[in-house]
Amino acid sequence: LHDGTAISTDTLVAGVHFDERLSAADVGYKAVAVSVSDVAAMGATPSWVLLNLTLPAPLDTAWVEQFAKGVGQACAAWDIALIGGDTTRGPVTVVSTTVGGPCAASPLTRAGAQPGDDVWVSGTLGAAAVGYLSAAPSPEALSALRRPSPPVALGPALALRGLATAAMDLSDGLVTDAVRLARASAVALDLQRAALPLGPSLTPDDATAALTGGEDYQLLFTARPGARAALEALAQELGLSLTRIGSARAGAGLRVDGEPAPPAAFSHFGGDV
Amino acid sequence: LHDGTAISTDTLVAGVHFDERLSAADVGYKAVAVSVSDVAAMGATPSWVLLNLTLPAPLDTAWVEQFAKGVGQACAAWDIALIGGDTTRGPVTVVSTTVGGPCAASPLTRAGAQPGDDVWVSGTLGAAAVGYLSAAPSPEALSALRRPSPPVALGPALALRGLATAAMDLSDGLVTDAVRLARASAVALDLQRAALPLGPSLTPDDATAALTGGEDYQLLFTARPGARAALEALAQELGLSLTRIGSARAGAGLRVDGEPAPPAAFSHFGGDV
Repeated sequence: LHDGTAISTDTLVAGVHFDERLSAADVGYKAVAVSVSDVAAMGATPSWVLLNLTLPAPLDTAWVEQFAKGVGQACAAWDIALIGGDTTRGPVTVVSTTVGGPCAASPLTRAGAQPGDDVWVSGTLGAAAVGYLSAAPSPEALSALRRPSPPVALGPALALRGLATAAMDLSDGLVTDAVRLARASAVALDLQRAALPLGPSLTPDDATAALTGGEDYQLLFTARPGARAALEALAQELGLSLTRIGSARAGAGLRVDGEPAPPAAFSHFGGDV
Repeated sequence: LHDGTAISTDTLVAGVHFDERLSAADVGYKAVAVSVSDVAAMGATPSWVLLNLTLPAPLDTAWVEQFAKGVGQACAAWDIALIGGDTTRGPVTVVSTTVGGPCAASPLTRAGAQPGDDVWVSGTLGAAAVGYLSAAPSPEALSALRRPSPPVALGPALALRGLATAAMDLSDGLVTDAVRLARASAVALDLQRAALPLGPSLTPDDATAALTGGEDYQLLFTARPGARAALEALAQELGLSLTRIGSARAGAGLRVDGEPAPPAAFSHFGGDV
């Protein structure tokens, strides 16, 4: 955060963060989307992107053209400008995106949740995880994996109206990210599995994917109970769903249905990085 | 460029941009330095950095600690703050840095050189290239390769005083970068080999390294001949050297001693990327 600008940066590595399930255009789209999601979650409106691209030699120009097309589609979707970047050779494709944009109000952080707050989540969860893990994923699940659709207007609206006490986007899975929010806010969070808004074509059996799978790019936030009516009105206004999935209390850690949370599905280095 | 902020981003890949000649701390230092150099060349004062780090598993914690130490040394050297980043797993170490800072005046660009302008360069050239290419480089040459020392105060001073018509930092070698400046400004540039300020411990035989070698992180700029006295005063004030190495004229392309420029030493994909 600097000078009223929120900035976020993310790296996607071939074979780690994407594979043949994603076309070159999907990779370009998604690389922009993940940083857009994070900037919006801070209450800012994404307005520019820098792109760092490491590519193996010999250069696969068809891949690069399709990648660029996906970047352009993402920039058009959220009205952001590609303002620069760096292209280098390397043994594997690595894409880093840095997105920034102005904060219209004090930025949202992970650190403001208070005991008694409601825990909310936007949209639906789990479809990308099912798209990634399932042998025969539905078109909706694949679409969630390939073309994340973060609720970019929500963060700035929450910030402007002062409706959220803490917020973050869901990139690494609800369990992992909720633990981070709880820690940053120094509260305990209790979630209800039955309350989770499951993605299209998911069944109750997929609730674990929604808890641990990641790549949802929805907004997790906390709000005072007195904000419920205003939040429901905002959801209507923005044409998106907001669901209460739990509450905050004094203490530490995360519980789901009163039990310690299941372990996260994925960790880059077998630890908390 | 956005909202009076200049931003630059660079990627360093293990085995491509650095090897065993650089310690982990050198890599951290240099990753920050190369983006700092570019921001300052736009006439801005670097003030923050984002760091994207891709690392192979298993994690080499000793390497990461030393890398972080080098990043910290660079941040201290130029008084900039590490404000965020992303750490991911991948088959090879990749470091992307994004540096930004405020412009105190209209930014310097590559596009303003006019026929009749002088061509100037700060500091000395070629030491890093000799440090990279020589079988037995001098300590000075190795230091230039490992710990680039861009003249960070120069770009902002040139911008504030309106002394430069165009500017860029020298990262890929004088020949490659001068061609870019000439093209962006739609002028021809004529350079004199004998005028090049060679780095410490270099001999006249090293002039080709100074022309084509890269990694100088000095400032290449153009200025009206009427600015000579003001530039010499600025050099004194900042305690650095500024050298006139040629001039701009109507036309296109780059000549050295009246001949077409020698080919650049290095290109990532065998072409202009």
